[in-house]
Amino acid sequence: MSEARVALVAGSFDPITNGHLDVIQRAHRLFGRVVVAVLVNPGKSPMLSLDERLAVIHDTVAGIAGIDVVAFEGLLVEAAVTHGATVVVRGLRSVTDYEHEWPMARMNARLLPGLETVYVSASAEWAHVSSSLVRQIHALGGAIDAFVPPAVLTHLGRRDQADGKT
Amino acid sequence: MSEARVALVAGSFDPITNGHLDVIQRAHRLFGRVVVAVLVNPGKSPMLSLDERLAVIHDTVAGIAGIDVVAFEGLLVEAAVTHGATVVVRGLRSVTDYEHEWPMARMNARLLPGLETVYVSASAEWAHVSSSLVRQIHALGGAIDAFVPPAVLTHLGRRDQADGKT
Amino acid sequence: MSEARVALVAGSFDPITNGHLDVIQRAHRLFGRVVVAVLVNPGKSPMLSLDERLAVIHDTVAGIAGIDVVAFEGLLVEAAVTHGATVVVRGLRSVTDYEHEWPMARMNARLLPGLETVYVSASAEWAHVSSSLVRQIHALGGAIDAFVPPAVLTHLGRRDQADGKT
Amino acid sequence: MSEARVALVAGSFDPITNGHLDVIQRAHRLFGRVVVAVLVNPGKSPMLSLDERLAVIHDTVAGIAGIDVVAFEGLLVEAAVTHGATVVVRGLRSVTDYEHEWPMARMNARLLPGLETVYVSASAEWAHVSSSLVRQIHALGGAIDAFVPPAVLTHLGRRDQADGKT
Amino acid sequence: MSEARVALVAGSFDPITNGHLDVIQRAHRLFGRVVVAVLVNPGKSPMLSLDERLAVIHDTVAGIAGIDVVAFEGLLVEAAVTHGATVVVRGLRSVTDYEHEWPMARMNARLLPGLETVYVSASAEWAHVSSSLVRQIHALGGAIDAFVPPAVLTHLGRRDQADGKT
Amino acid sequence: MSEARVALVAGSFDPITNGHLDVIQRAHRLFGRVVVAVLVNPGKSPMLSLDERLAVIHDTVAGIAGIDVVAFEGLLVEAAVTHGATVVVRGLRSVTDYEHEWPMARMNARLLPGLETVYVSASAEWAHVSSSLVRQIHALGGAIDAFVPPAVLTHLGRRDQADGKT
Repeated sequence: MSEARVALVAGSFDPITNGHLDVIQRAHRLFGRVVVAVLVNPGKSPMLSLDERLAVIHDTVAGIAGIDVVAFEGLLVEAAVTHGATVVVRGLRSVTDYEHEWPMARMNARLLPGLETVYVSASAEWAHVSSSLVRQIHALGGAIDAFVPPAVLTHLGRRDQADGKT
Repeated sequence: MSEARVALVAGSFDPITNGHLDVIQRAHRLFGRVVVAVLVNPGKSPMLSLDERLAVIHDTVAGIAGIDVVAFEGLLVEAAVTHGATVVVRGLRSVTDYEHEWPMARMNARLLPGLETVYVSASAEWAHVSSSLVRQIHALGGAIDAFVPPAVLTHLGRRDQADGKT
Repeated sequence: MSEARVALVAGSFDPITNGHLDVIQRAHRLFGRVVVAVLVNPGKSPMLSLDERLAVIHDTVAGIAGIDVVAFEGLLVEAAVTHGATVVVRGLRSVTDYEHEWPMARMNARLLPGLETVYVSASAEWAHVSSSLVRQIHALGGAIDAFVPPAVLTHLGRRDQADGKT
Repeated sequence: MSEARVALVAGSFDPITNGHLDVIQRAHRLFGRVVVAVLVNPGKSPMLSLDERLAVIHDTVAGIAGIDVVAFEGLLVEAAVTHGATVVVRGLRSVTDYEHEWPMARMNARLLPGLETVYVSASAEWAHVSSSLVRQIHALGGAIDAFVPPAVLTHLGRRDQADGKT
Repeated sequence: MSEARVALVAGSFDPITNGHLDVIQRAHRLFGRVVVAVLVNPGKSPMLSLDERLAVIHDTVAGIAGIDVVAFEGLLVEAAVTHGATVVVRGLRSVTDYEHEWPMARMNARLLPGLETVYVSASAEWAHVSSSLVRQIHALGGAIDAFVPPAVLTHLGRRDQADGKT
Repeated sequence: MSEARVALVAGSFDPITNGHLDVIQRAHRLFGRVVVAVLVNPGKSPMLSLDERLAVIHDTVAGIAGIDVVAFEGLLVEAAVTHGATVVVRGLRSVTDYEHEWPMARMNARLLPGLETVYVSASAEWAHVSSSLVRQIHALGGAIDAFVPPAVLTHLGRRDQADGKT
């Protein structure tokens, strides 16, 4: 009999997109338990702070039993060990994504034997959506509400209020 | 709580390769129960008959609890329904494989809503091995024992004996 | 001032899919006049005869001013000359499609200097739909109505009636 | 009848290459009217200032009726609206280019319904030429005259004179 | 000191194209000695017989010291052993070519340890030319003289004369 | 008769990996003489200084006749001229690598006519290993000894001692 699996869905989530959310939900349907691991350092010119990214994801998946949200820094394999995850779930938007992913998957399997990585294809309607495109559009003043969960907009709105924008 | 999953690993398996076996074993570790579905019609110039392909796979996975081997013709989604599988597991040897796979995965999800497809990357040592290359090498008299489970060779040997070849 | 362009959308259309139809409509919006050129010889195991394919496309684009439907055999560049087309419009479902297309585009430009080829990306909802997948699904008894214009189904129904199938 | 189209060819053009020029000319032949839109912010370590890039392109396409050169910052879709362009023309040097382009095209169509993106394959002789490779070669002291229109060299020469080199 | 290398350039050469010739010449410049190995069985609907293909290549490389032309059937690695070749040279027209080539290269290295495969990128002007496109164009009555060495045309002409055409 | 070739294997080697070493050794077996050219400027956030990178490679290939290690800045083609190399050897880990490599190869052939570039496929066990992944793992405290020659670890150890760590 197979032991229960905890799936790891990791990323910067700066911001979480509808595409990410779709992958998280599908990982949840596949394995029952999901740890969403938010990379502490999101790269250059972040849109949201770590706290904001964690809060946005919490708000988005609140009330779904079996999904935990955690921050991590360091190696992905350490996050897997810490949170008891034995399978990493990755969304693929394109073949370029796959080319980027498979060496990391193989590397992770070398660093932590037994850690499996599985890929799911992005849903048709979200395959073109990436955090970096969303950040660009937002930075240039475009509307991003079609591409991200509502909580992203709520948090950006709160921040604008705090900044005295209205 | 998540329901248990039955994973479908489908193909012509003409012949099954060590790469296929690796995918079956990883699907088994991921989901606990696997149905190996052998396509009745293997394409042009088959190397093994349906019965031979079924027997070879039976011999190869004999004694592993949770792995069933079945024949199927018709749509993959029908095989999934028949055998209670709700996730299809596919091995990717290269980006070309992925380009071939994702439209079928999306199509299958359209034909059978809720059917999920997950991909795993082929292990480094088997990424270059395909049934068609193995068939070519065998047809040209080359040795294929490094690329397939022993049962393939046993069955080919049996057939040669029946044919009066030493 | 630029001369008016006639766009060529060529293929086997065995059968025409909603993806093809999307490309034809977009070519029509781009250039105003479109020649849909149906390859006489559709390849192995055709689903529809040339007459059926022509009739289906006629029915599908009937009443749209500026779209003509013709049969062609021989070189694409000859069809372009015959019908006064100076730009070929191709839909891309994936990078693999593009890899297949660009050498033909360059070849056509060598055979007929001045013939331009432009590509449009398949719409998200049709990117996974190809005639060959549709043929496979239909041959295996699956429903294809979600992927093709209604006229395809009408013509298949007529043929089944003629065959005495209810 | 189809309305006339204005095509948008956008980029950093730091510097404009013979490959860019080829795309601009082909867009002009296809649609009659082209707006060359120069991104204000060219990225890290620019080779030419905005004014230089605009001047170089003006010099290069001077005297071709139907080609306008403008600067833009912000979203591409806003530049399209501002300048009345309804089709974006992009050159593809490789499949990697296409993988980078299609999500942006789909995103732009979401942000501005009706905006079409068409791709043309780079001509054989310019498929290997990119602004970034040209910048690298120039920075390392190599000759770039085979890859860019003469106006690029003229402007670089002028600058060197102003700097007292010669 | 390194031993001298004999390079193997293998294929169906149905017909040899200017792209093939370019690869042969570059292999010759790289390694000094080249064996051009012509696959006996060229696949479905051949354009030229084995004898014609051998004669055409002989005519094309006649007088170049260090290039031999041989027929082979069976495994590539056997042809390598027979003719003392220790490096296989392959031309890449596109990434799709590479995806097709690397599993065969790795397989050949497994079948004959020490056999190295090296790739060269097709020259810009021949990257779009393949034997299959040339065959299609010729079958449809198009002119192929821009894409193949003159000897191909001479042999086709001779055959037409023998057939009483002209 | 073919002149002897000197092969150039160039890179940042920050750090040299087992994959790089494999390419150097295969280039050596192919051409007998290899110049390993270490780019002076390794990019952002280097792991090893130029002196360390040179020393590590010297230690790794010490005693292999026919392999020289040099530093270079500027154009690759200049390094080729300086060191008498007429062929560049590049390792390909994936199709993405190839897409990145071929424009540079074509560019180099334009800048230095006669300079040939050949590619070899990474060995199965090192195809997932890149300097950038190794740097990331090391920066995050992971063990890299499975992916790099021992000399890398020796030099990192020496540095840690100098820093007063352990």
